[in-house]
Amino acid sequence: MQQEAPYCEAVALKYPEQVVIAIAKDPQGKDNPITLGWTMIVSHDPPMMAVSIGKTRYSLEAFRSAGEFVIAFPSEHQQEETLLYGTKSGRDLDKLGAAGAVTQIAKEIDCVLLADAVANFECRIVSELATGDHVVFVGQIVRSHRNEATLNRLYTVGEGYAMAGLPRH
Amino acid sequence: MQQEAPYCEAVALKYPEQVVIAIAKDPQGKDNPITLGWTMIVSHDPPMMAVSIGKTRYSLEAFRSAGEFVIAFPSEHQQEETLLYGTKSGRDLDKLGAAGAVTQIAKEIDCVLLADAVANFECRIVSELATGDHVVFVGQIVRSHRNEATLNRLYTVGEGYAMAGLPRH
Repeated sequence: MQQEAPYCEAVALKYPEQVVIAIAKDPQGKDNPITLGWTMIVSHDPPMMAVSIGKTRYSLEAFRSAGEFVIAFPSEHQQEETLLYGTKSGRDLDKLGAAGAVTQIAKEIDCVLLADAVANFECRIVSELATGDHVVFVGQIVRSHRNEATLNRLYTVGEGYAMAGLPRH
Repeated sequence: MQQEAPYCEAVALKYPEQVVIAIAKDPQGKDNPITLGWTMIVSHDPPMMAVSIGKTRYSLEAFRSAGEFVIAFPSEHQQEETLLYGTKSGRDLDKLGAAGAVTQIAKEIDCVLLADAVANFECRIVSELATGDHVVFVGQIVRSHRNEATLNRLYTVGEGYAMAGLPRH
């Protein structure tokens, strides 16, 4: 049976929640990553993915000025950098440098891939939509990459940034 | 290291993927559920969630005519009905009836909740956005509900509709 509950109590039942790392080049030319739980696929043909970014976030400027971004699925071995990208701002910090991230040059857009991720998708922004205190960016996927090894994706598994890898079947 | 790969190969690394059941009343007055993996939260204040629905799906009509919908997080005990809602069309079938689903009346919108789900959110549509072969609907959450019991959410854990419950921490 369902009982009415405050939104914050009901939505706390959402875990485990997928996380992605979205990277866009900022106006100064720095590749800026942000960890996001609010993401989904939005088209099969052509392939498109969407992410939802807070209106106050530094990444908003980078997305808009770059017009393109990378979505990486972090692996279970990337917990520390995933936490850093989600809790520090690119206004003050070169987050990829601070994390010591290993990157590769993207093939079709002016951005980087995360070498250690499960997979990376190069996206060109095709639309954006304001939604409350966030903005949804829709990207058409122009190139796809996967790790040579088959790795488990990283998830937020509970409140307070608790993260863990979860196997696929 | 990343290697370029076909999109279908890279995106197959996305699992486990959350699933939700979105319910909207169709023009004939029937509450029609659809299982969706493509969903995300898109605003904290006010709370909003979005779903992505294929342009050929019967649910598209129901969403547009109703202007409101429910998002339910199915529990690990709802695997059979979750599969049915994702593989049958409401054009031909009363899916809730066929599944023998236990429902409760929503509090603020004209729709039903799934009594056995982990949580249910009543949403009013505030915008829609065409994205390739899908349409994204954004709903503002007007009421929230949770199960009396604390249950594990259901996930798609691999290809071929493989599903399993996953614990939160």
